[in-house]
Amino acid sequence: MHMAERFDEDSLRAVGVRIDAEHPEGIIFDPHQPQLRVTDLAAVRGDGIFETMLVKEGHVRKFSAHLERLQRSSKITGIGIPPAESWRAAVARGLDEFRTRSGLPEELSVRLTASRGVDGEPASEDVNFSGTYWALLTPVPQSVQASRGNPISVALLDRGYDATAAERAPWLLLGAKTLSYAVNMAALRWASEHGHDDVIFTSSDGQVLEGPISTVLIGSRGEDGRVHLHTPSPEVGILPGTTQATIYRAAEAAGWTTSSGPVTVEELRGAQFLWLTGSVKLVSPITRVDEQEFTADPEITDQLLQFLTQEG
Amino acid sequence: MHMAERFDEDSLRAVGVRIDAEHPEGIIFDPHQPQLRVTDLAAVRGDGIFETMLVKEGHVRKFSAHLERLQRSSKITGIGIPPAESWRAAVARGLDEFRTRSGLPEELSVRLTASRGVDGEPASEDVNFSGTYWALLTPVPQSVQASRGNPISVALLDRGYDATAAERAPWLLLGAKTLSYAVNMAALRWASEHGHDDVIFTSSDGQVLEGPISTVLIGSRGEDGRVHLHTPSPEVGILPGTTQATIYRAAEAAGWTTSSGPVTVEELRGAQFLWLTGSVKLVSPITRVDEQEFTADPEITDQLLQFLTQEG
Repeated sequence: MHMAERFDEDSLRAVGVRIDAEHPEGIIFDPHQPQLRVTDLAAVRGDGIFETMLVKEGHVRKFSAHLERLQRSSKITGIGIPPAESWRAAVARGLDEFRTRSGLPEELSVRLTASRGVDGEPASEDVNFSGTYWALLTPVPQSVQASRGNPISVALLDRGYDATAAERAPWLLLGAKTLSYAVNMAALRWASEHGHDDVIFTSSDGQVLEGPISTVLIGSRGEDGRVHLHTPSPEVGILPGTTQATIYRAAEAAGWTTSSGPVTVEELRGAQFLWLTGSVKLVSPITRVDEQEFTADPEITDQLLQFLTQEG
Repeated sequence: MHMAERFDEDSLRAVGVRIDAEHPEGIIFDPHQPQLRVTDLAAVRGDGIFETMLVKEGHVRKFSAHLERLQRSSKITGIGIPPAESWRAAVARGLDEFRTRSGLPEELSVRLTASRGVDGEPASEDVNFSGTYWALLTPVPQSVQASRGNPISVALLDRGYDATAAERAPWLLLGAKTLSYAVNMAALRWASEHGHDDVIFTSSDGQVLEGPISTVLIGSRGEDGRVHLHTPSPEVGILPGTTQATIYRAAEAAGWTTSSGPVTVEELRGAQFLWLTGSVKLVSPITRVDEQEFTADPEITDQLLQFLTQEG
């Protein structure tokens, strides 16, 4: 079942680490026990921000890039967050908990969440500890690991906004990774009900945006065999992809060319190769967009996956 | 402080009532103790729905209308919810708890929340009890009670969507009252930072929509003294206002005329009288929209408040 793969099938083995002013390096909790008040704004109004990272053999991939993006979300939303060293210490504590309890799984997903906290009752006078903060470490299901690089079918769905909304309406929080993801989840359900595996959002004026939980990557192979990668730029109100950024650095080092900028739906439909990239699923080649078939290039896909093992 | 008024200043005296398959009539909990797992989709992705109602002297106002709208949100989002009698029994239990503990406050706000629950771990095989459900009863602060009918200043803010988005893109969940309210809260913060008390959202193509937590009401007094009320219709992707509906029924009985339909920003700016209506704040006359001044008619405002005491 496609949707279930996105979440923790193995949640019985999950570990939580809370961060607060008294525990700036984190304190372990059991995620199967209640931890949040119903008045926490995360649960009241989806008023929080998050990041999801992959831990492979005990090493957190692109930790800095995720912390930078969390900081960006913090700035956009005005939700104070603990310093980077707190998040790093909390995740290290969670990994240690796995090591002492049951051994470290080969792969874990780590979700960092910062909620604005309980309204009117800041958890601390220090604005960087005034909300509710936790890291959740969950083993990556074998099914997700095995599905990497497998071809997928996507639906193009209208995100409702035009491509200039982010610039003219900062209160829309476009570019922040907030907990208000009900629409993203609804889009994935809609796609699943219509025979697709995933979604690419488009703007109401025909620009390609992003997936509900992923970044769009477009590729072409030149006559000389050299690969060029292109991705929609964040100016249209989307998240800068940390996985895409890692791929770009490695690709450029390997002599590929890369670019980012506006992509129209027509350009997407005319693309040679397409992928969705994300921190846990990594790289998924797209072989269908709505009713249109696309060819996958297993060689390039393997190379993209390889790029992601080289760094952070 | 304006923003704080929207939430529970008196949360120390709040009462929670959880509903689950084992407690279809509700079971009391202390909202100051953790109640939700961090894996609950309410906190993970703002994936839930809610309603907020007013209880005056022990009587829940327009309970049926709120339950109907919760049912509508349930249908749009696919989140199963307990039957109406469960919600009614849970709220009655919460009111009893107040009666036995500290006496019933003159006014309470009651928030009904239904979360999709913990993904992959339905709370019950019965889809109507598969999520996480609770009612939170909180005394209405004296400051909120006293502020009813007071003039407010609003900012017109672009909601990013055009007026046809709801119809063409059901995955946007427009018309459902979901927990993914980060944008609504950001809009209210933006307004507060710019000297306004509240917000009226407009569509990207110039239609008037709704407030982040209220309905827009437009009024005019004819030459014969008769009042006509108008409100934007739900087809543009907004919530049907339960307070506005109650006002309409009473107004029509009193011989006023009413209508609903599209309202352009120009028409709003040319209106004679404007109000925001909501279940707890009831009626707020608008005396400023951005930089434009409006006249309030205290007589009509008083009558609108009076209409709301007559029913449900």
